[in-house]
This record gives sequence, C-alpha cells and structure tokens, in this order.
Amino acid sequence: MKKEKTPDQQAISRAPFPASHKVYVKGNLHNIEVAMREVRLSETKIHNGFGLTSPNPPVTIYDTSGAYTDPAIDIDIKIGLPKLREHWITTRKDVQQLPNISSVYGQSRLADKSLDVLRFAHIAKPYRAMNGANVSQMHYAKKGIITAEMEYIAIRENQRIDLLNNQEQDPMLQQHEGQNFGASIPKGYITPEFVRSEVAAGRAVIPCNINHPELEPMIIGRNFLVKINANIGNSAVTSSIEEEVEKAVWACRWGADTVMDLSTGKNIHETREWIIRNSPVPIGTVPIYQALEKVNGKAENLTWELFRDTLIEQAEQGVDYFTIHAGVLLRYIPLTAKRVTGIVSRGGSIMAKWCLAHHRENFLYTHFEEICEIMKVYDVSFSLGDGLRPGCIADANDAAQFAELETLGELTKIAWKHDVQTIIEGPGHVPMHLIKENMEKQLEHCAEAPFYTLGPLTTDIAPGYDHITSAIGAAMIGWYGTAMLCYVTPKEHLGLPNKKDVKDGVITYKIAAHAADLAKGHPGAQYRDNALSKARFEFRWEDQFNLSLDPDTAKEFHDETLPAEGAKIAHFCSMCGPNFCSMKITQDVRDYAAKQGLEEDHAIAKGMQDKSKEFADKGNEIYL
Amino acid sequence: MKKEKTPDQQAISRAPFPASHKVYVKGNLHNIEVAMREVRLSETKIHNGFGLTSPNPPVTIYDTSGAYTDPAIDIDIKIGLPKLREHWITTRKDVQQLPNISSVYGQSRLADKSLDVLRFAHIAKPYRAMNGANVSQMHYAKKGIITAEMEYIAIRENQRIDLLNNQEQDPMLQQHEGQNFGASIPKGYITPEFVRSEVAAGRAVIPCNINHPELEPMIIGRNFLVKINANIGNSAVTSSIEEEVEKAVWACRWGADTVMDLSTGKNIHETREWIIRNSPVPIGTVPIYQALEKVNGKAENLTWELFRDTLIEQAEQGVDYFTIHAGVLLRYIPLTAKRVTGIVSRGGSIMAKWCLAHHRENFLYTHFEEICEIMKVYDVSFSLGDGLRPGCIADANDAAQFAELETLGELTKIAWKHDVQTIIEGPGHVPMHLIKENMEKQLEHCAEAPFYTLGPLTTDIAPGYDHITSAIGAAMIGWYGTAMLCYVTPKEHLGLPNKKDVKDGVITYKIAAHAADLAKGHPGAQYRDNALSKARFEFRWEDQFNLSLDPDTAKEFHDETLPAEGAKIAHFCSMCGPNFCSMKITQDVRDYAAKQGLEEDHAIAKGMQDKSKEFADKGNEIYL
Repeated sequence: MKKEKTPDQQAISRAPFPASHKVYVKGNLHNIEVAMREVRLSETKIHNGFGLTSPNPPVTIYDTSGAYTDPAIDIDIKIGLPKLREHWITTRKDVQQLPNISSVYGQSRLADKSLDVLRFAHIAKPYRAMNGANVSQMHYAKKGIITAEMEYIAIRENQRIDLLNNQEQDPMLQQHEGQNFGASIPKGYITPEFVRSEVAAGRAVIPCNINHPELEPMIIGRNFLVKINANIGNSAVTSSIEEEVEKAVWACRWGADTVMDLSTGKNIHETREWIIRNSPVPIGTVPIYQALEKVNGKAENLTWELFRDTLIEQAEQGVDYFTIHAGVLLRYIPLTAKRVTGIVSRGGSIMAKWCLAHHRENFLYTHFEEICEIMKVYDVSFSLGDGLRPGCIADANDAAQFAELETLGELTKIAWKHDVQTIIEGPGHVPMHLIKENMEKQLEHCAEAPFYTLGPLTTDIAPGYDHITSAIGAAMIGWYGTAMLCYVTPKEHLGLPNKKDVKDGVITYKIAAHAADLAKGHPGAQYRDNALSKARFEFRWEDQFNLSLDPDTAKEFHDETLPAEGAKIAHFCSMCGPNFCSMKITQDVRDYAAKQGLEEDHAIAKGMQDKSKEFADKGNEIYL
Repeated sequence: MKKEKTPDQQAISRAPFPASHKVYVKGNLHNIEVAMREVRLSETKIHNGFGLTSPNPPVTIYDTSGAYTDPAIDIDIKIGLPKLREHWITTRKDVQQLPNISSVYGQSRLADKSLDVLRFAHIAKPYRAMNGANVSQMHYAKKGIITAEMEYIAIRENQRIDLLNNQEQDPMLQQHEGQNFGASIPKGYITPEFVRSEVAAGRAVIPCNINHPELEPMIIGRNFLVKINANIGNSAVTSSIEEEVEKAVWACRWGADTVMDLSTGKNIHETREWIIRNSPVPIGTVPIYQALEKVNGKAENLTWELFRDTLIEQAEQGVDYFTIHAGVLLRYIPLTAKRVTGIVSRGGSIMAKWCLAHHRENFLYTHFEEICEIMKVYDVSFSLGDGLRPGCIADANDAAQFAELETLGELTKIAWKHDVQTIIEGPGHVPMHLIKENMEKQLEHCAEAPFYTLGPLTTDIAPGYDHITSAIGAAMIGWYGTAMLCYVTPKEHLGLPNKKDVKDGVITYKIAAHAADLAKGHPGAQYRDNALSKARFEFRWEDQFNLSLDPDTAKEFHDETLPAEGAKIAHFCSMCGPNFCSMKITQDVRDYAAKQGLEEDHAIAKGMQDKSKEFADKGNEIYL
C-alpha cells in the first residue's frame, strides 16, 4: 500500500538506475538481507550469419544508495528510513533505551518550542550500553563474535563474486594480479570471519552507532574495497534542512560510502537529526564545529565540559564517527609558523587558538580517555583529525604534520585499549613523489589503523578543478593502502558545493577508489571493467552506459553527437562515422584470424598469397 | 595601425588573461624574442597596525596561446600568423623554395576551382631541403649547432627562473627535491647547449617543419617540462573549417603544447592549411587517415605510392609530426585476437586490415627508410604510433602491445640513422600498478626517445569522465618519465568533443603535466604553486584566480557563493563565513607565535599562565 507522495518526497531523488533493480542476498549466520544493485545486460549478437545471440549475465554493483532506489519501499523523510539494525542491536542484550536524551544542550533544544517547526517529528529515545558494557564492533570482534553487521559486510564486499567463482573459465573474471604493498587482501572472497579478524586487529572499522540503526553496515580497511566520503553541510551563508537531506541522499546515490555533516550554521542540531534518520550510510561529524557555535565562535571560550556535552548530544542522535583533533599539541603549533599556509584544518586552527590562548595542552588530548568512555557506550568510531595537515605543496610532509601523526599513533593505542574503533585522517596537499611516505609513516606509527585522506591534492594551481588535482593523489594513496578517501569537489577553496559539485566530487572519487581497487588486485574488482569493455567492443551502447558510474552523463554525451535511437544499436562509434571505425575493423580481424587459424604463428608463414587471394575473392569483407 | 575586425576574427578567442600581459625575452645567441605571460600580483597587507604593505613580484607563466593574447598584434586568420621562423630557416641556407607543391593530390586540390571558396587564400610555396641536405633539428644538433629554435626553447623552458635565481632567499623559490627515476634534469636552469645535447642524443624532439614557420618552438623530452597534446578534427558527422581553427586556437589558449588534427571528413586538405597557418604550436597528423579517405575507406586498397604522396602533401603544408603505425607487424596481429577489445587504434586497425587482406608485411614498415628520406627534407618528426595499444584494462601490458613496442625501438634507431627526430606513442588503458612497466620498457627498447602517451586510463567504468580516469594515469606516467601527454576529453568513447570538452581536457592535462613536473623536481616548477598558495593564505582572491590554470572558472565558482565585489577583498573564505575561518585563525597563531618567541620550544614551558593572562587581558584578539 503506497502512500501519496508529499511535496517533500518529490524533492528526494529516488529514480532507480537504468536497467537496474535491487537484489537482496540472505545471510547464513544471521537473518539479514544485503542490498545490492543488479544491472541487466543485453545479449551479444554473434556474427556468423545465423543471427545467433549469446547472453551476458547481469552485473552486481556495490550499492550505497539505500532504500531510495527500491521502488517497492515506501519512504517518508519525515519518518526516516526503516531501522534495519534495531533488532540486531537489541538482540545483543547489552543496551538500554534511555528515558530521555542525556545532553544538556539537546534537552534545551527539545524544550524550545520555537524549534518545533524545524524538528524531526519522530525522535526516538536514545540507546546506550548497559552499565559496564562496551557495544563497539571492535569489542565484539575481540571476543570472537561475528555480528550481523560483520556478516552483512562480508556479503556486501563480495558483490556475489563468490557465486561467480563457481563458474569455471568465465572470461569476465580475468583480472591482473595486483600490487598491494603488503596488505592482506584475501585471494578469493571475503568471509565474515575475515571481517571479524580485521576489526579485532584494528585494521578495519565498522562505523555504526547503535543510535543509527538505519544504516547499511560498511567497512573501512585497506584489505577491503576502498571507500569514499562526501562532505555536506550548511554554513552561515547557505541552505535549508531539506536541501541538506537531499544532498546526503544525492551523495549516496552516486556512491558516497559515508557522509560527513560539516554544518556550521544555525540549527545544526535539528539538521543533523533529519540527516541521520534518512541516511543509509554512516554519518561523521567534527563536534568541535558545533561546540564553537555554542561559544559564539570564540575558540578560547571552549571548555571540556561543553565539548563533552556536545559529544553526548551527537552520539545520542546517532553520529557514527567523530573527527577529534586530539593530536594538535601545544608544542607542535610553532612548527607551523613558517609554513606558506599555516594551519588550514578548521578543527586544527580552533584547537591551536585555544592552546595558545590558555597556554595549556589541547583538552582533547588531556581528556582523551574520557572521550573513549563515551565512544564505547554508543559505538562511535574515532576519526583522529589531522589538524596540522599541509595546506599547500610547499608545506607537505613537514615536521608539524609528521609530529602530529606520531601522536595520533599513540592515541590509537589508547583508543584500542578501550576497544574503540579508530581511523586516522591524512592530508591534504602533497606532490606525487611524497605521497608514499605519508602512507608508510601512517602504517608505521598507527599500527595499521585505517587511513582516511583528503585527496591529497597534487598541485595548488588549479582552483576550480581540485576534484581532479586531488583525485590523482587519492587514487595513488588508495593504491598504497588508504582505506577511505574524502572527496574534494570542484568548489574546494572557492565556495560551497551545490548538487552538481557533490555529484562531480563523488563520481571523481569513485574513479579514484576503483582505480585503487584494481591496482591492489581486490578480488573481483575488474569484473565491471571487463563487462563494460566487452559491451563497448560489441557496440552494446546501452549496456556501456548502464554499467558506467554515471549512466545519465554517458548517455547524454553520446546523444549530443548522435541523438537518434538507432545510433545506440549501430555498429559504429559516434566518433568516427559509419565507414571508419577501429572497433568494427578489429572485429573483422578477429573473425578472420579465428577462421584462418592465424593464431598459430607458423600458419602465417605459409600460403600467404593463397589466403590473400581467397580474401579478395570474397570481396575483402568479413561479414559473409 | 589596427585593421577593422571582420566577423571571422570575432569568432577567434583573443582576450588577454586577467592581470596578464605578454613579455618578450631576448636571446643572446640569436636575434629572437621569446613570448611569455606575466601575471601582475597585488601587494600583501602587513598586519602590524601601521597599514604597511609588501609587494609581490609578478609571476611568469609558460604561454602556449601565441600572438592571439597580445592585443598589440594584428591577426587575420585569412592571412595567418606572423612567420616567426621563416628568416631563421632561410638564413641557414640549406633550403630551397619549390616552384609548386610536389604532391599529386595537393596539385589536384589546387586545380579544383570548386574548392576556391574553402581555400586559404595566401598559400605559400613550400620549402624543402636542398638536394642532399638534412634540415632536421637533430641533424644540426649532432653537428654541434645551436639553432635559434634551441635557444628559443631554453629561454622558454626557464620562464625567467634563471633571473629569479639571482635573488637570494626568495621563499617563493623553495621547492621539494624531486624524484625523477634516472632522468637528467638540470639543477638550476636550462641552457641552449643542454637543449642541443638532448636533441642530439634523441632524448628530446623539437617538432618544427620548415613549412610551419608560424610556430613558437617547443621541446618534448623527459628532462624538460612535461607537455600536452590536444586532438581536434572534424569527422563525417561534424563541423566547419572555421570552427576547427578556433578549436585549435582555443586549445592553445588553455595550454595545449601541440595539436593533432585528426580530421577524417571531407576537405581535410583545406582545413589543415587553415589550421597550420593559424597555429602557434606544432601540428601533428595521422596521414593514414587521409590516405584511407582517398581510397574511400577501403583499407585493402591502400598503397605505398598513395601513402607517400600523402606524406609529401602534408609535409609541404607544414605538418610538424606524423603518427606512423609502422610497428603493426603481420605476426603481431593474431596476438590481439583474444583481447577483450582487440585493436582500438584507428591507424592500427587500418594497417592490420591491410596486412591481413594482402598477407604481406605492413608497408609502413617495409618502406620505413623511404619515409625517413621524406621526413628529413622537411624536418617532420616521427611519432611512432602504438597501433596495438590496449583498449581496456584487461588488455593492458599484453604480448601484442610489448611486441610492437620492441619494433618501435628498432625503427627509432633507423630514424636516428637519418637524423630524423622521433617520439614513441604509448597506451591507452592501464591499471595504476602496471603503468611503470610501460615506462621502463619504453626507455629500455627505445633508447630514451621521448614517450608520448594517451592517458593511460586507469579504469574502464567511467565513460563521461575519462579525462579524469586518464589524468590519474597521465600524471603518474609523466612523473615516471613520459615527455608528452595526449589529452583525453570527457567525450572519449562517447562522441566528438565540443569547445567545453576541449577546454576541460586541456586543463585536466595541464594539471597532470604540472603534477608530474613537481614530482620530478623540474627547476622552478613549484614557483607558481607557492605564489598561488601565498595569495590564498593572504586572501588575495584576485591573485589566486589570476594565477590559476583557469582564472575564469575560479572566479565564477567563487562568485556563485559570494558574488559581491567586497567579498574578493574580504579576509574570510566563502566556505566558512566571517567568524569561522581557519586561515584567519592561523594568521593570528602565526603573529602571536612570532611575537612571543614561541618558536623556541623552551619558551613554551615557562610562564604559560602569565602569557595566557596577558593574551586574555588584551581581549583574546591578535590584531591590536
């Protein structure tokens, strides 16, 4: 029974992808259904004169778009997404539902009737671990428990490649052996036990706050598919709550694996509730941004107590990971004084200003264990912020940056002592030849905790194109071992991204992440490339569009040159016209080579003249 | 005395870049003036309460836009660009001006009155070497002669960094030491003698047909700045001659170092004349495309004689380099039969079809020395085509590709025997971890002849975004040693690029090339990054735009968020609003650190409370 669509719902992008439908793969250990996208392909026409065809199996694609692209599911953003994980969480019997929200700030917002018009109407009572319990996935993993989240992830990462492996000799399964720089990527496919062991070792993170039961579990770790994050968020200058929700849905539609809400404007508490309730992917935040709002932008007025209340406020809303700039130590700040661009991280500069104003050590560092105590009762993951990352090529790999990285390594070990999941943020702006050093030092100092980098941008001279300057660095560092890539949009350094920028950023980063998966040799990563290239070679235009990261743009670009429907089934490319197409000629060559046994080298030497004559006699054409 | 602008001229992009003007640097050895672009910067405001300012010296930028961006020069595309090099060429006294064009085809076109409306009106009589002479730059270089072209290039490559080197302690000159994988990049700057020696060794190429005197000399070699090529050209489906000229001018405006005219439609002889006469950069072609037109698209009807006539036709028009697919040997063709996408090079597939049809060896291979004889009397450079390059990830680095590369190495040595300048074309589609092998094998087989690659694309799954999939590979292979990168536009695999696509492709490839220059540690390469980042840090918005690869887009993106003029002199970013800007906070930190002597670690430990109080007493603000 479908409800009437309200105007609100119309604003949310829900159209399924072309030739695609959702498939749900059942678990073995748990009663779960893992969502994926299946793309149907058309059949290959065989050029033998009999009009025969050969089917092409559908291709399964990792799908971050959530329930939005399943027309069978009713969605009302006023109610939020189905709470997929709530039953999993409560079944573990280690959580309590609180009678009310705990944070002072959250309570004051709830009590403010003037906010009722903005407020998400169906706010649930928050969950928290029972007294003394630890509900982090790392905690379960260390105890040897394979959670539903872990099995979900194993199935999701495989994208049914484990089922394809049973088909012998599938040419679409051919793949180059990768170079993974010492990672431990499984050869065949991902098992639930492998997921557990990686989480237990701290080498992978499953961001999944127990108060965000709507999310579809995903994993961040260098032995898994490389993930990408999209930043959204309003600021003093911009947009509405509804726009922000659509921006998140839009980012997920095109492939964002997580979304960071970096709002700095008014009503960010209320905006965040809407985003989380409607987000199928983990949500990250930088709590210090909101804390600063609470002290009217005066960094020196920040206090641990106010920050602590902010952490609890956000944890109970369901934020899945927090960027915490606990590595910006007082003694590192002077190391940035001679930089060309000083401190460019917003969180880093806030903490630096606080440290200098008080001449005391960063309170995020001094209270780090107390932060861990909060994280583990909601299963919020750390994203240890790189507040001293370089903001330009000149400042790359300097003393300030690497000093902070060492401290992040120390903090990682403290977090792990509390079984709190932890990822490490990385730069920034780095020329290509200095990127690898970043990865190597991170692996060394942070004991293989997942690395999560912003680009890096490989040059400073292309504002307006920094999705590209950074995709180069992102692809490379992803190959070297970075587990998640934070996208950069074309508006970086210039302004706030609109929907087009968000899409451009996401697609660009999907490219970087996938290029890294191919280079690392992730199992099955090349399947989609093979299927798309086969479609391209066989002039299956629609299949080529449908298998691409952005079918809409691929089709639109093709149609600009040859808009007629007939052109999409034509056996020539739009680039070269009907009489001049290398693909067509190659098909002729291939058919001929196969027919004449040219594959044996010795066959070439003999009888060349005869064969030539025979070919000419038949009109020098192949399709006889 | 300026002429009236005709409608034709209006169609050509001539606006100078913002805050930029042309400068002309004189030679020492030759009477030459080397064109560059100089960007004026505004001054830095010093935050010391006295309203002082500090000037920022102008930045010199490598300029491929030619005379078009100099408002002092009259240009009429019906007449063509000034013949900069004609005097240099004739002064060498080794050329003769022919009474008429030599090619049968060219003569027939000239005799066809129906083409008068299309024809460039001022066709000059072609030059050719005197009998027995060799007019290639390699020939001069081997004889120890530093030509005007070589000195022009040395001055051009330096971009006045040699003059800046005299200023001590310029912080803008700081640069990371590069990693260049065994290249021989000079430490300080480029000398004319270095240019000569690289050309003599075959490690660099100066494409400069004596019949293209309009070009501004440039060099392709891994010890020089990485160059980019833009492809233009009509086809059976598209555009007018005038559009093609503007496309070339447009590509040069944004940074194309060479342009390949890949036209396959009608009237390509006439179109080419217009393009060359109006092109300030070297023009490359693939003569087999035109030869195929002459036999109505029937590859099997191609003959050596017809091809030879085409080479002479194009050489006398002034084409600077020819792509010649002489490495597609008969015995290599069957190696492509089991590929996912067979032969994707148009030239490669034409030759493969010819070879199979006749069961004879590729006539480009068997007549290679005769081709050399033509090349050296006009100084046309070889671009040895990779007709068997992989067209998808699956086919990368296979036996067919590397077999052809070995043959290209053999041919290089034959070309060098004739002192014919030679570059080698490379792939294609290659996953990141297999890119380096391409560079290494090319260096090994081709004795360091410059490598010229198409991307490579690092994944197949993003049609519509292949400028990006390929920029990743291009930047990497540029770093590894590729001398010139052939751009890929967003329309690759889908359709013909329009002006926006050409610009997107060029800018994307300027990014890749510059990222490679930074990673290789090319002298002075980081200067522009430093200047732009300093401007960014100091909120000199206009300077940031003007120093960027695409000032128009940078400014437009900024204005989308904060359109008011005042915002461009505001001391906050458009991203974060006036009260929340990391750059502003960092400036506070820096001023404070300098004032308090915080740079000495021991100073931090003592008196923290006092300093804190002092800071608070002054209102917790820095700008006192």
